[in-house]
Amino acid sequence: MGTGLSYEPLTPTSFLQRSAAVFGPRLAVVDGELKLTYAGLWDRVQRLAGALAAAGTRRGDRVAVLAANGHLLLEATFGVPAAGAVMVPMNIRLSASELAYMLDHAEVSVLLHDDELTELAQAAAKGGRVRLVPGAEYEALVAGAEPLLVPVEDELTPLSINYTSGTTGRPKGVVYHHRGAYLQALAMALHTKLDAGSGYLWTLPMFHCHGWCFPWAVTLAGGRHVCLPKVEPGEAWRLIREHRVTHLCGAPTVLTSLLAHHAAPDAALDPRLLACVGGAPPSPVLLRRALRAGIDVIHLYGLTETYGPAVICQPQPEWSGLDAAELAVLNARQGVGNVIAQRIRVVDGDGGDVPADATTIGEIAVRGNDVMLGYHRDPAATEKAAPDGWFRTGDLGVVHPDGYVRVVDRAKDVIISGGENIASIEVENALVSHPGVQEAAVVARPDEHWGEVPVAYVSLAPGANATGAELIEHVRDRLAHFKAPKAVYFGELPKTSTGKIQKNVLRDRAGRAD
Amino acid sequence: MGTGLSYEPLTPTSFLQRSAAVFGPRLAVVDGELKLTYAGLWDRVQRLAGALAAAGTRRGDRVAVLAANGHLLLEATFGVPAAGAVMVPMNIRLSASELAYMLDHAEVSVLLHDDELTELAQAAAKGGRVRLVPGAEYEALVAGAEPLLVPVEDELTPLSINYTSGTTGRPKGVVYHHRGAYLQALAMALHTKLDAGSGYLWTLPMFHCHGWCFPWAVTLAGGRHVCLPKVEPGEAWRLIREHRVTHLCGAPTVLTSLLAHHAAPDAALDPRLLACVGGAPPSPVLLRRALRAGIDVIHLYGLTETYGPAVICQPQPEWSGLDAAELAVLNARQGVGNVIAQRIRVVDGDGGDVPADATTIGEIAVRGNDVMLGYHRDPAATEKAAPDGWFRTGDLGVVHPDGYVRVVDRAKDVIISGGENIASIEVENALVSHPGVQEAAVVARPDEHWGEVPVAYVSLAPGANATGAELIEHVRDRLAHFKAPKAVYFGELPKTSTGKIQKNVLRDRAGRAD
Repeated sequence: MGTGLSYEPLTPTSFLQRSAAVFGPRLAVVDGELKLTYAGLWDRVQRLAGALAAAGTRRGDRVAVLAANGHLLLEATFGVPAAGAVMVPMNIRLSASELAYMLDHAEVSVLLHDDELTELAQAAAKGGRVRLVPGAEYEALVAGAEPLLVPVEDELTPLSINYTSGTTGRPKGVVYHHRGAYLQALAMALHTKLDAGSGYLWTLPMFHCHGWCFPWAVTLAGGRHVCLPKVEPGEAWRLIREHRVTHLCGAPTVLTSLLAHHAAPDAALDPRLLACVGGAPPSPVLLRRALRAGIDVIHLYGLTETYGPAVICQPQPEWSGLDAAELAVLNARQGVGNVIAQRIRVVDGDGGDVPADATTIGEIAVRGNDVMLGYHRDPAATEKAAPDGWFRTGDLGVVHPDGYVRVVDRAKDVIISGGENIASIEVENALVSHPGVQEAAVVARPDEHWGEVPVAYVSLAPGANATGAELIEHVRDRLAHFKAPKAVYFGELPKTSTGKIQKNVLRDRAGRAD
Repeated sequence: MGTGLSYEPLTPTSFLQRSAAVFGPRLAVVDGELKLTYAGLWDRVQRLAGALAAAGTRRGDRVAVLAANGHLLLEATFGVPAAGAVMVPMNIRLSASELAYMLDHAEVSVLLHDDELTELAQAAAKGGRVRLVPGAEYEALVAGAEPLLVPVEDELTPLSINYTSGTTGRPKGVVYHHRGAYLQALAMALHTKLDAGSGYLWTLPMFHCHGWCFPWAVTLAGGRHVCLPKVEPGEAWRLIREHRVTHLCGAPTVLTSLLAHHAAPDAALDPRLLACVGGAPPSPVLLRRALRAGIDVIHLYGLTETYGPAVICQPQPEWSGLDAAELAVLNARQGVGNVIAQRIRVVDGDGGDVPADATTIGEIAVRGNDVMLGYHRDPAATEKAAPDGWFRTGDLGVVHPDGYVRVVDRAKDVIISGGENIASIEVENALVSHPGVQEAAVVARPDEHWGEVPVAYVSLAPGANATGAELIEHVRDRLAHFKAPKAVYFGELPKTSTGKIQKNVLRDRAGRAD
């Protein structure tokens, strides 16, 4: 029995094709003054594919994009694969030399970029053979091209290469395939209940884990992409109100900064907003603040290697009856595999599962359709990361009796003091429970006697006052005394372009602090 | 680059495995007095698999089930594939000789059946080598077996064989694969917004198109399966209220009979109910009645060959602002491909697309991941149904300018009178718009002069009175006069086990009526 009748390769590009047919006149993209319908977006996407092919792009060629959240990046997400090419989304906060490494490593032939990033793009491409296409030229190319759609022949071929932030060593190129992005997008739409009435605010950079597959999830639902080139809380609140935003994603720090802004709502928003928070656990305090503003928080967890959120803190209907404090504790866990993911494991050193006792620590391990094909041009790193076919995330976790996984720390963020393990997250949560603390990061400082000791970096809430001694006492009231920071430093915390606190920077700083 | 890390065969059995882990203590099944949690259901399913294997069932063997909607049929839907076997759901309304044909044609080795159907099962299996397992023995087998889960190695291998109702000729065995059921289940859950708070009432027989893939859709969402062995409206309303039912599926006649019952609500239900209606277009009158009772209606369309609903009358947010009459007209269309389906085509005799002008009639054609692998042991029929790789549904339709497809009639239900085509559905809708008419079916009667003429079979609403002449006049006021029935016959309409009106029976009756 043949399968020709009943087999079509899975590709997320098909979601836009369907939405253009079903939701043709609906608003698809808001990007400043520009508005595109689904029919208009699909037309531009196919003409981008035609323009790339006319310029010599062939099946499997790499096309990079250096752009802030906006129509160019979104169009390329569909248009580069529509040309049969592989997209390389690039982080606009990186240096020219970091970008140059990626352009070279991915053997990129074309780089589409925002006009505002021309200088950076030119510096990155200097001396290479990359063709640069700035925004103005991009518009002319798209306007003048014939539409094209190159069919996907094998759903396991690469769709995009997503470089890790490279806090340790060289960035690695994480290869996504069409099938994985297709399934992950369906899972995201299902779990967050996206539909044609949804408005999605792009607080998460689309170039980060390819936007956690939300470029495709929002599109398959027929929702509105509301672009935000830069997370400026006042502008975010304006867009949320003007475009009836119902969904956004980001690191907890993004939600923290939104809620700290004077434009934040005094009463519950209407419509309510679902904030999908990942990259770090939302603190109990943040969860409580969000609920007061009419923002439901769903906690997602994943890595670049897992197309973004492979793990979801699956809400149970009974949770809506809990008070905020109880809910916050449950919601602060990373949770379980999403509906298309395989079971998330926490494994010991021999690769066996740890018991579901909420205390035995192991490393979180994943595999399945939403795990990367591997690292581009680096089979040794792929093999090392997945020695037995299960990808080791580098995050340490425990399994609760209800099966929900909780990250206790990044393996490299654990502080080992006098032979005791201190989870930096636990100390941070204790610090953030102080009303004057907006954000906190705890890292190890080398110590002659203890090996390492914890020290804290803290930013205070607007108008708040607190001393280091007071905060240390606050932690000692809540945790074993050896877990309390030995020093507290106040000031703005260094963050990655995606809002993650850069603990590596703080560790360096702590090492020099004596 | 290998795909071992990032490839797992798709199988809908994995959805129960996940829900058992994530929703373990939640209520999964209500079947009379029996209640099963998700953990309990998964345990029974794996032990059913173990029992089948212990009894000699091997990978690819066929296991049939003859049972009303209930835990046995639901458990087998997961447990037979968990044993590596292929399930054959059987229609309990068929005769022993029809069932015997299927048992033989599918080379079934084991037949699980309800105790109440022992006589029918024995008659069907008589003389064959099928092992019969009645409900009582089934319980003992499951209780005594070791759990088993045979992994799926190829997602394109058969999952179940679903026999068509065979109104013309021998029933055909439609083969579903694991991948198709997995994707279709995701689509159903996404479009109908199933979640862990949902209660799903089994008005649709699970043995019909394998329950439109809702056994898997409800399970992946963690919702409650509320079993209804027989559509008895009083019992249905009792279960809807007791188990806070939010979803049900069925033919329009099912919804009509529910709404005609004295237990139907006077005011809007709380929670509201989503009725997924398919098998025939819901009449504008039915849609209006449902809305008054707090029942939202979504119109789905498909065939056994398309895993049930490949097509959905996708609601647009603006539709909620329309009055019931306008909404009814839009909702009476079959619509567009669901989110995982390929584009639904309407093709002319040469296989080309008809224009989207709402008037040019062609045949509806489908292909893709939710189209059958083919007919079991009948490659000639498969080839005939899909001569160019697009499966011809046998339904005639038009494409509206917004891309929504509308079925104008089954190819074989069209009445050709004096060279003019009369769509039986159009005449039926005109009849049903009369307040006294509950249901109507219009079929062709051979006629010496005209070739064929339309005649109507009508059941009146409880307490209503109407004459044939009055109804003919009612139609003539609304349609071209040649479309009005030449005769009207009153009485109960013959229906299939799935609630479809049996037009073939009426055609025979009409042919003998002179």
